[in-house]
Amino acid sequence: MQIINEPDQALAQAVQGIQWAHPELTWVPETYGCYDQRFKDDQVPLIAGGGSGHAPAHWGYVGRGMLTAAVMGPIFTPPTAAQIVKVAQAVTKKKRVFFIVKNFPADVAAFGQAQATLQAAGWEVGMALVADDISVDNASLKKRRRGVAGTVLVHKILGAAALNGATIPMLTTLAKQVTAAVKTIGVAASGALLPGQAQASFTLQPGDIYYGIGIHGEPGYRKEPFQSSERLAQELISKLKLNFNWQPNDHYAVLVNSLGGTPPLELMVFNHDVHELLQLNQLQLDFHKAGTFLTSNGMHGLSLTMLQLADPDWLTALNLPVQTPAWPN
Amino acid sequence: MQIINEPDQALAQAVQGIQWAHPELTWVPETYGCYDQRFKDDQVPLIAGGGSGHAPAHWGYVGRGMLTAAVMGPIFTPPTAAQIVKVAQAVTKKKRVFFIVKNFPADVAAFGQAQATLQAAGWEVGMALVADDISVDNASLKKRRRGVAGTVLVHKILGAAALNGATIPMLTTLAKQVTAAVKTIGVAASGALLPGQAQASFTLQPGDIYYGIGIHGEPGYRKEPFQSSERLAQELISKLKLNFNWQPNDHYAVLVNSLGGTPPLELMVFNHDVHELLQLNQLQLDFHKAGTFLTSNGMHGLSLTMLQLADPDWLTALNLPVQTPAWPN
Repeated sequence: MQIINEPDQALAQAVQGIQWAHPELTWVPETYGCYDQRFKDDQVPLIAGGGSGHAPAHWGYVGRGMLTAAVMGPIFTPPTAAQIVKVAQAVTKKKRVFFIVKNFPADVAAFGQAQATLQAAGWEVGMALVADDISVDNASLKKRRRGVAGTVLVHKILGAAALNGATIPMLTTLAKQVTAAVKTIGVAASGALLPGQAQASFTLQPGDIYYGIGIHGEPGYRKEPFQSSERLAQELISKLKLNFNWQPNDHYAVLVNSLGGTPPLELMVFNHDVHELLQLNQLQLDFHKAGTFLTSNGMHGLSLTMLQLADPDWLTALNLPVQTPAWPN
Repeated sequence: MQIINEPDQALAQAVQGIQWAHPELTWVPETYGCYDQRFKDDQVPLIAGGGSGHAPAHWGYVGRGMLTAAVMGPIFTPPTAAQIVKVAQAVTKKKRVFFIVKNFPADVAAFGQAQATLQAAGWEVGMALVADDISVDNASLKKRRRGVAGTVLVHKILGAAALNGATIPMLTTLAKQVTAAVKTIGVAASGALLPGQAQASFTLQPGDIYYGIGIHGEPGYRKEPFQSSERLAQELISKLKLNFNWQPNDHYAVLVNSLGGTPPLELMVFNHDVHELLQLNQLQLDFHKAGTFLTSNGMHGLSLTMLQLADPDWLTALNLPVQTPAWPN
């Protein structure tokens, strides 16, 4: 059961619910986009976006020091280029904007088209493409490189840089460094929910879990019977270790994320397991958050994001207090 | 499935998980209690507590301007009086403390015994008893008056007062006023989870919802087939209206709370419905939050709390920014 009304009204009603709960966000007509009403147009505005159904991403990260605006589309479907352009125009009169985009074909197409439209109108437009998912496709053995929860750390680091006056070329360089250093992998015990559909995006045998799923319920790379939280942590960390090839005393930030249907108790048990295993790897864990950051509409599951802290400024940026609905200072 | 390890280790491991994620909390040995490590012993310390399984309550509200400390017991079981005393002694050298307690017999007994122990040692001890649940027992037709999500608003208002120098008699008077003005009622589509138990605290027919449940999965007052989020909002608001007997232009704070297993999209749809219906009642909704504040370990459900704002200082207190893991400024 989903606690909604008419399924085709769910998103519009949820957006109104967000408006009541967060009057500090101003919504742009004819879009599911919102911006920080305190924004003074004195820095490069950062805009992130994508489908709805990932709350608190991305509207929950709008606020001084993080995103200037977020623009969502329908559930699991990105906004149109026209909607992205409308939000950019509502935010700034200075014809400059920087987009943070998750690496899904439809998202890249929409933001790319918005970029082209704005550039044709004389705007300077930068873009970060986040492709942190290290899940591997079973058939091609290629990494899927979808954009998932690591995107939130990209918001945070670029947000601090933009607040400190970074130009679009500076943000572009920084985005390349950060997106190359951030990797995520997830696991789920249930699929994502779609309003009006009784079936989740995938179904598992009772007691099975699925490694490497995507945030819209895309398939993972292996199913197996659930054994323990620690076993999940071992699997995800072994994949991250292979990808990072880390050495003792390397410095990392860690983000443990609920995919939306995981109770806080389970999240914190898993967080414990992750931390114990990473300590056995003798890593320096300079930054560590666990919470509900980027979800798959009710999916019972978790993702683990790690960011190699190549630059001490990144840690400063992660720790900078911000005022947003969802980032925990 | 619950994503944990050995069930009898779940709580201890979750507490370690919280420690990694929130190094600003200092934990008291031999307890599941923690305090704000920045506390300077320059105000009356506020301590709330109760069973675990309600995260982010109560540890998530520890921080300057809200709680000084929180002391949890096992899942859905309060801490012992000895543990409460230990936490109070760890927090302050000034022999003064104020407890915020949810109205369950075991909680009241444990905190009452801790109060007596400390008073015998020369402490000044105040206590607020929160009994906001307006759910009615079917047999006796008495209000159950359990302490539920309204407790978080009591933390917030008393937290601001304590920060501003309120004495224990002042906090006692304020607590009486605020607890008399706050009322909550909940609804669920699933029971609460207990580590190691396959069955939730209650089971419903598929598609049924249960009005008036408690935060440990205690029974409610009526089951019926789920129709819509709006129908849930109508039922809960009708009960609150009967209890408050409100008039147009009365001023209220509203807290819409996920019981732990409700996706953000559903929470915000319900929040929309609540707000529309309250506006039809012509109330002045001066404060409005929706989120995950006090949970029933994974319960798919919602609660609605309203606080009649009898004093403009209460609204100022609710809006005061604080630094805690879970309160959204």
